[in-house]
Amino acid sequence: MPTTITPRKVDFSQWYLDVIEAAELAEHSPVRGSMTIKPYGYAIWEQIQTVLDRQFKELGVENAYFPLLIPQTFLEKEAKHIEGFAPELAVVTHAGGEKLKENYVIRPTSETIIYDTFARWIRSYRDLPLLINQWCNVMRWELRPRLFLRTTEFLWQEGHTAHALPEEAREFALKIHQIYIKTYDEYLAIPAIYGRKSPAETFAGAVETYTVESMMQDGKALQACTSHYFGNNFARNFGVKFVNQNNQEEFAYTTSWGWSTRSIGGLVMSHGDDQGLVLPPKIAPIQVVILPVILNDSSKSLVLDFCQQVQQLLHTNNFRVKIDLKDERIGEKIFRWEKRGVPIRLEVGLKEIQMQTVVLSRRDNNTKITINLSELVTVVTSLLEEIQDNLRQRIITMNKNKTIEVDSWSEFVEAIETGNFVLAHWDGTEDTEVLIKEKTKATIRCIPFNLEPVPGKCVLTGKDSPQRVLFARAY
Amino acid sequence: MPTTITPRKVDFSQWYLDVIEAAELAEHSPVRGSMTIKPYGYAIWEQIQTVLDRQFKELGVENAYFPLLIPQTFLEKEAKHIEGFAPELAVVTHAGGEKLKENYVIRPTSETIIYDTFARWIRSYRDLPLLINQWCNVMRWELRPRLFLRTTEFLWQEGHTAHALPEEAREFALKIHQIYIKTYDEYLAIPAIYGRKSPAETFAGAVETYTVESMMQDGKALQACTSHYFGNNFARNFGVKFVNQNNQEEFAYTTSWGWSTRSIGGLVMSHGDDQGLVLPPKIAPIQVVILPVILNDSSKSLVLDFCQQVQQLLHTNNFRVKIDLKDERIGEKIFRWEKRGVPIRLEVGLKEIQMQTVVLSRRDNNTKITINLSELVTVVTSLLEEIQDNLRQRIITMNKNKTIEVDSWSEFVEAIETGNFVLAHWDGTEDTEVLIKEKTKATIRCIPFNLEPVPGKCVLTGKDSPQRVLFARAY
Repeated sequence: MPTTITPRKVDFSQWYLDVIEAAELAEHSPVRGSMTIKPYGYAIWEQIQTVLDRQFKELGVENAYFPLLIPQTFLEKEAKHIEGFAPELAVVTHAGGEKLKENYVIRPTSETIIYDTFARWIRSYRDLPLLINQWCNVMRWELRPRLFLRTTEFLWQEGHTAHALPEEAREFALKIHQIYIKTYDEYLAIPAIYGRKSPAETFAGAVETYTVESMMQDGKALQACTSHYFGNNFARNFGVKFVNQNNQEEFAYTTSWGWSTRSIGGLVMSHGDDQGLVLPPKIAPIQVVILPVILNDSSKSLVLDFCQQVQQLLHTNNFRVKIDLKDERIGEKIFRWEKRGVPIRLEVGLKEIQMQTVVLSRRDNNTKITINLSELVTVVTSLLEEIQDNLRQRIITMNKNKTIEVDSWSEFVEAIETGNFVLAHWDGTEDTEVLIKEKTKATIRCIPFNLEPVPGKCVLTGKDSPQRVLFARAY
Repeated sequence: MPTTITPRKVDFSQWYLDVIEAAELAEHSPVRGSMTIKPYGYAIWEQIQTVLDRQFKELGVENAYFPLLIPQTFLEKEAKHIEGFAPELAVVTHAGGEKLKENYVIRPTSETIIYDTFARWIRSYRDLPLLINQWCNVMRWELRPRLFLRTTEFLWQEGHTAHALPEEAREFALKIHQIYIKTYDEYLAIPAIYGRKSPAETFAGAVETYTVESMMQDGKALQACTSHYFGNNFARNFGVKFVNQNNQEEFAYTTSWGWSTRSIGGLVMSHGDDQGLVLPPKIAPIQVVILPVILNDSSKSLVLDFCQQVQQLLHTNNFRVKIDLKDERIGEKIFRWEKRGVPIRLEVGLKEIQMQTVVLSRRDNNTKITINLSELVTVVTSLLEEIQDNLRQRIITMNKNKTIEVDSWSEFVEAIETGNFVLAHWDGTEDTEVLIKEKTKATIRCIPFNLEPVPGKCVLTGKDSPQRVLFARAY
């Protein structure tokens, strides 16, 4: 473990890796480009899973599980899809001690094998909508891996749905998009910019891609999750047909949508500070950590008993609470839980037992107060809400300060160079989009949904533009 | 979907596949030997996951995630381990458009990559015990796949722990063994035989393997889950060392333990009948299904409103309940939910609304009663308990009827041939074990823990035997 965390201003990239190491979230594995998610990192993922899974199920989505391996020929059925994924595939050529007759790829995403299955499951309009999700691992071979953000293997949920009507499918993709926005905003305390992807950034094989783009503290964008409306593109390639109410055969309209462990990287880069990770209470695996202050062996059991009493009190009030029982001095304990971003720390020693108090520290603003045990539940309840709100407000302020409207090319270049989200006019062509990327490394993150469309002139070509779009450099 | 389910007495193997299809649990996938777990099958898995995960966490086990791919050289570090798994490996030779310098295998189990990691994580006795679990997919290339029981890919949890003392590690493996026994008994209503594996059946690389062996309705055994104590075998091969309290370096003592989707196959073959699946209420994703009896359009909304009222009532009392809204006749609905093994069905039509009653059918014994709405919660509560207990008692009776003590070779052969669990003396040698398997296809399932060890003479060789062991044919 590093003794110090590189400050953000010195080297944001190194800071990110230092925080992940200091908070014990994940580490590189012996397999190039892949990572091991450590218990604390995985516990965050479990929190996210619980929140998302509940919302999916409320919409009637059912979980299922499809095979890891996909016949390579399946991917080739959708021309754009294979074009997009071919360079990233891991291929199984041998199994059971023999060379296989047909190569299998490890799923980079499961549209192809799932549509092949849907074609068997769907017969009539009565079978629709078919709303399926799976929680699984996927693999995309990455040449420049980065923990959580780009790794050869990652965990995610991928939802896949089929509908009888195009507008119903599109609406469903947008419903999920709303769940994603809300989950980032309300639970991860990351209010984000969201909208539709430009054609060049649209998912391989999709008609439209909806995205949530969060601003990291260095002003770069993180594509936080996406939802896709496929029209009947995939359905045609995989024969996903149904007999409609007029007894005619039609292709189904489909969607897919995914949220991955990348979101944990987003949490780090949104809320972290130079002391380490900072977690929003609603997603923190541990909301309150109790640190026993043990000065000598004779008082040890007294202090631990009191700690257990405090833990029990908070536990029965549905807080996620843990006592740190490690055989370490209090300074080391404080340091560890600060790095791990636990919202509230409680210090408890002999003095506190005598006074029936605890010393409470907030991770988000470092304030420290002494409170009576009788008020503990009330204070913790309101402070956790306050911390959640404080973290969210910081992001809102940052988003506001670092989102700039520009109308000239020189302003555009400067705004991008200095790490901002830039709202600028674009002539709608892929050529211009590519040219801007070549010149500035900025891409169109989205055509925002929550921005009044006012026409103007393209910031590069001066041609007509129906509305501003969001440009930024991205992870 | 088949219109009929083959009766168990006609063809037990076909019956098993018919029930899986009729209950919509899973199906074969286009990748040879692998399966797609359908929503209803996956929902059972989610129930099992919840029950196990809670118990692991109560023991202090933390979830984490390790890479899918393992360098092939890792497996070769433990001679018996690679010998055991080599024939079943799927190998990735190409990725990112290139031939890899080193081949990777898809994990058949994760001891090797996890111990490689533990060697970095563990420094001192303060880091022990290290209690880790992961929920994941694994792959073992199967030539004769069978849904849930043997598929190339399956889902499971694999726990891996490291301890400072050998007896502590062994005790931990036995604690998990107890959780497994209890979960099968109390939740899946499958009281089973359990004990230690004979050397020939011990896991590749383990010192001891503890197993839960359930009797299927055809008298064959299903190895339902196992826990392994490794001594420091793996620790030596992977350098998992720690500095003990006397400041000396030692190898750690490790365990691993797994429960897989195979357990769903066990549920089918334990409780199913000729009408389809029968689920124990404690593990059933849907405990009560409400079937609206809609005779005409005019009464439709009235019936559906009443159904929702009944659902709400049961839902607020924490039952897992669903209304079947499919546009089908009541006969079809009853048939579907019978095949899917839902413990209680409620039929609700105009007549029931007038009388403020519901018609309740039990899946386990086909009884049908009419009950007042006011008594619904009380009746459902006690009936679900009764059904759980009834299914469990049936297994106890079957276990008793089909477990036979024999003392001669001819009795042994006959008892095995007629589909029984056989308790017989064995001389303790692997030669005899192999010979018995060759002659009868029966293997030693376990050296039972819950059987008084009384000495005798080996059923095949007549040599001394310290205690009876359990023989059976197995899946």
